[in-house]
Amino acid sequence: MLNAWHLPVPPFAALRGDFLYLTLWLEGDTLPERVLLRAEPDNEEWLQVMESRRIGKYQRYHAVLALNEGQPARRYCFKLLWADRQSWVGPLGVSTLQPGALEQFSLNVPDDGPGWVSDQVFYQIFPDRFASSGGDHLVQDGSYYHHAEKRAVRRCGWDDPIEPEGSPSAFYGGDLDGITSKLPYLQQLGVTALYLNPVFTAPSVHKYDTEDYYQVDPCFGGNAALVRLREETRERGMRLLLDGVFNHTGDSCAWFDRHQQHTDGACHHKDSPYRDWYSFWPDGSTRDWKGFSTLPKLNYASAGVVAQIYQGPESVARHWLRPPYSIDGWRLDVIHMLGEEGGAKNNLHHLAGIKQAIREENPEAYILGEHFDDARDWLHAGVEDGAMNYRGFAVPARAFLASIDNAGHPIALTAQACAQWMEAYRAGLPHQVQLRQFNQLDSHDTARFLTLLNGDLARMAMAVVWQFSWIGVPCIYYGDEIGLEGGNDPYCRKTFPWQKARWNSDLLALYTRMAALRRESEALRYGGCQVLFAQGDTLVFLRVYQQEQVLVALQRGAAGTLSLPLSPLLQAAEWQVLEGKGVLTSEPEQLGLALPAESVTLWRSHNNG
Amino acid sequence: MLNAWHLPVPPFAALRGDFLYLTLWLEGDTLPERVLLRAEPDNEEWLQVMESRRIGKYQRYHAVLALNEGQPARRYCFKLLWADRQSWVGPLGVSTLQPGALEQFSLNVPDDGPGWVSDQVFYQIFPDRFASSGGDHLVQDGSYYHHAEKRAVRRCGWDDPIEPEGSPSAFYGGDLDGITSKLPYLQQLGVTALYLNPVFTAPSVHKYDTEDYYQVDPCFGGNAALVRLREETRERGMRLLLDGVFNHTGDSCAWFDRHQQHTDGACHHKDSPYRDWYSFWPDGSTRDWKGFSTLPKLNYASAGVVAQIYQGPESVARHWLRPPYSIDGWRLDVIHMLGEEGGAKNNLHHLAGIKQAIREENPEAYILGEHFDDARDWLHAGVEDGAMNYRGFAVPARAFLASIDNAGHPIALTAQACAQWMEAYRAGLPHQVQLRQFNQLDSHDTARFLTLLNGDLARMAMAVVWQFSWIGVPCIYYGDEIGLEGGNDPYCRKTFPWQKARWNSDLLALYTRMAALRRESEALRYGGCQVLFAQGDTLVFLRVYQQEQVLVALQRGAAGTLSLPLSPLLQAAEWQVLEGKGVLTSEPEQLGLALPAESVTLWRSHNNG
Repeated sequence: MLNAWHLPVPPFAALRGDFLYLTLWLEGDTLPERVLLRAEPDNEEWLQVMESRRIGKYQRYHAVLALNEGQPARRYCFKLLWADRQSWVGPLGVSTLQPGALEQFSLNVPDDGPGWVSDQVFYQIFPDRFASSGGDHLVQDGSYYHHAEKRAVRRCGWDDPIEPEGSPSAFYGGDLDGITSKLPYLQQLGVTALYLNPVFTAPSVHKYDTEDYYQVDPCFGGNAALVRLREETRERGMRLLLDGVFNHTGDSCAWFDRHQQHTDGACHHKDSPYRDWYSFWPDGSTRDWKGFSTLPKLNYASAGVVAQIYQGPESVARHWLRPPYSIDGWRLDVIHMLGEEGGAKNNLHHLAGIKQAIREENPEAYILGEHFDDARDWLHAGVEDGAMNYRGFAVPARAFLASIDNAGHPIALTAQACAQWMEAYRAGLPHQVQLRQFNQLDSHDTARFLTLLNGDLARMAMAVVWQFSWIGVPCIYYGDEIGLEGGNDPYCRKTFPWQKARWNSDLLALYTRMAALRRESEALRYGGCQVLFAQGDTLVFLRVYQQEQVLVALQRGAAGTLSLPLSPLLQAAEWQVLEGKGVLTSEPEQLGLALPAESVTLWRSHNNG
Repeated sequence: MLNAWHLPVPPFAALRGDFLYLTLWLEGDTLPERVLLRAEPDNEEWLQVMESRRIGKYQRYHAVLALNEGQPARRYCFKLLWADRQSWVGPLGVSTLQPGALEQFSLNVPDDGPGWVSDQVFYQIFPDRFASSGGDHLVQDGSYYHHAEKRAVRRCGWDDPIEPEGSPSAFYGGDLDGITSKLPYLQQLGVTALYLNPVFTAPSVHKYDTEDYYQVDPCFGGNAALVRLREETRERGMRLLLDGVFNHTGDSCAWFDRHQQHTDGACHHKDSPYRDWYSFWPDGSTRDWKGFSTLPKLNYASAGVVAQIYQGPESVARHWLRPPYSIDGWRLDVIHMLGEEGGAKNNLHHLAGIKQAIREENPEAYILGEHFDDARDWLHAGVEDGAMNYRGFAVPARAFLASIDNAGHPIALTAQACAQWMEAYRAGLPHQVQLRQFNQLDSHDTARFLTLLNGDLARMAMAVVWQFSWIGVPCIYYGDEIGLEGGNDPYCRKTFPWQKARWNSDLLALYTRMAALRRESEALRYGGCQVLFAQGDTLVFLRVYQQEQVLVALQRGAAGTLSLPLSPLLQAAEWQVLEGKGVLTSEPEQLGLALPAESVTLWRSHNNG
């Protein structure tokens, strides 16, 4: 029996000057004869004997890692040696085999990403559906002709039901001034950062079919409304993230111009200056995104596209980072699909270029990649600061609580399988990247979580506490906080009901408390994360930073009890229950937890040690 | 109970035109209701229902993957759906959780790597120690002054023992004409490709301290001797790989010129045109490779270095790929450490540039990366065709057979842990990359395998058969085949004893048979690889291509017996034992294997079906 404890955060990992002070704790019947720190400061293995000391029933090991050389991602693990065998300690625990290069503890020193991200509570807004200023600029019937659906757009009443037929052409009249008017509500909730779905001029309601990258849609209030929103958010200390749709344009974009509103678009003119901005099949048809004829893919083999989208002095990526808009970052749509010649060729090369351009404008900008699945290739390549964390949070949480996977297929997930999934996924990511992962429960592209749960509010509470306490930054999809329901698109894009009578005030209160808790908890904003117990229907994890500990226990199904041994990680402390009705009993060597059926409980402590 | 069989090779994966025909076989008590092929042709999930048919006791599933879009690395796995749960099939078998992006079946279509590599049997030569022509150009006492050791080099007699003191300055008189004279011996052995340690002018015997990248060391016979070796190997249909030491130069290189043999080297002249070709600490000292003062690191932030080493029209990388040398590829020394400003900054960017330059000169060139540890980052990035496969073959084989790891530490490895290690390491690599992995038992940088085994010839035979039958291309380190022994450097660099009386002829015969077997076995050269049994001291694996099967059983320790169920993978066949004394018994539904103690047995079949 051998137990090991280490996390890449204080007090286990402390950065002082050019040195990283690392502490590993072991407890066991047969301790190793030697423990080595294994690192790769120059991409080659470097082994360093750790100094050791007995502390009560534990053995504590120390090493100092010099940081003056090497790559920013400091990867390390621990090698335990006996006379005739060895073991290893990595983020997934004690193992017989050496963790692979991307399965080790990892810490960026220096970290080139924005430190402010994990301090936030994000709120995602689909602008047409959140709030309306009622101004004259709003969409009216026929404001646009939506070629994708061969119909003019239409204007619905705010409380009209969603019709599946023609939904991308149905406008409800939300706009940016509407959002600005609701900032007090959002601040009350504890929101500190907005992520807006696309706002640039485009005929559809979702505006992923960009017509003009340099104009906020007039029906959303135009550029002036964005300036007003920016100024108001700045005064309130709020961050603002826009949606960068750089994989494809809309087919009404002047560069492409399928409908011949302009003169020299690529669609109909082989000698168009924009012809090589797009890709064409041998039969002359356009290479579209996923076959949608309104979404021609940009061809990054073209120097013109590279200059216009990111590299040039007046590029789209740069433009909105500058005053008076000064956005705080980009959420990059289908970032993994962007590339050359109609596909994703040289994807990482162009993403590195996009990152460089963004950083040149604002070294603190947040670059958030959209990925529906495994984003680790991109995160390890360092081309983005964080990913929309479907794979690492939303999908496993949905699978555990709603027994449905990302494709809508049934999945039966025990707590141990769920923990294995989530822990393996994040194991090798640098700690700061884990803190910047964008943890949503749902979005404009998925059914709402409450709907997946068939309205089960107990499970929704479990999901919300999990979202706000798991490592990463939480993002509320507008309306989730008041219990808005809705299945897959278009039903997940209902208008926000501003009559308080339609709100679930208990849920709103829970969101508000969790946002407030994050604001005052360094463990939640910066802490390490470790699953302490995962079995059957019970999942317990800990967040730790310096002397602060936050303990979260999810109990699916019937009530349960368990014991957690105290350790150098889970320390003796005064525990305060902040959410839920679980009961914690401090015993000499362990904590006893009694968890009600279908519950989540959150405790917080500052230990005495 | 559910069993699944698939490998990314025929007959399970067949490429026809722009389509990949995939077949999955299942057997179980409760078969899934639906099976989906999961692929990411455009980096996004794409699910396709597979057609199914009952074949005897198996269910066979078919899907056709269109290849006209997407990235060359076609990654896929299979999703199995029941009413209330799901499972997945990937290269590591059946799992509850979806395999990660880099843990799926993978096949490059098109494959941009050299197809000839896996047809070879490589032979690594340390030129000073293999064979001597006896010519007048050979090193004599004092031919070089070796500053690293503050002594002139000395010439030893071929049979003089290795002295640890001053070993990098001790020459034994091997040269390129010596190698050329031994080509008949190598061909007899079955060698088809040579990998030479560095041959360019340098004061040390190992020549990793390059003085002149454009001259073969005169003491090795100069450029003319390389031309002779090239012509002779070409006539014999043999390939030739040189060692590219592009991470650092020697300190006597004119660009650096520590010893002021030239006039404007970077070491002593801040205004040297080569000053920015190297990196310097604030105190003016040079940033060397691993602190060796004779090995100043090249600084790839310098346009001059980039042009000279790879990009320019007369770059080193290009020069030797051209006539009359026309080498077949480069083995790139410490490829993961190369980069800017004294470290590995922008490593992948420069490696991509090196690859591009090499491919421009010879689209079929083999780019082999040296990595002592996890090479998957580089292999997945596509900057090399294969890696020196320490991590995926040499180290686990050493651990299993010699109980020693890469750092010389003790390791106790069961067959199941060994299989887990090797299978997990290669799982997500494209099949063709796996075929190009460079499987050595040892090299000039390690103790010889036979020495690690304390001369145990039974285990050595296990190692050799494993090396020649595991997926990848085998490379014999000169002398291993006749039982040459030697511990870590300098003892692993003894001269080749050309008196046959000193040879282990049994071992040589084994190597010769295995080389011959590879030549006629498509399963060994192109086949899929799957561990069929791994428990305790017994490891059994299968290579499969079309109708050919090769079965290999390693039995460490006492004798053992086991049964292997027949399946769509392991088919009923006439089995022929080609190596070893194990006994295979064909039974109605299974194969019975009886394996002697400390043995390896290899069977081959062409099935009837």
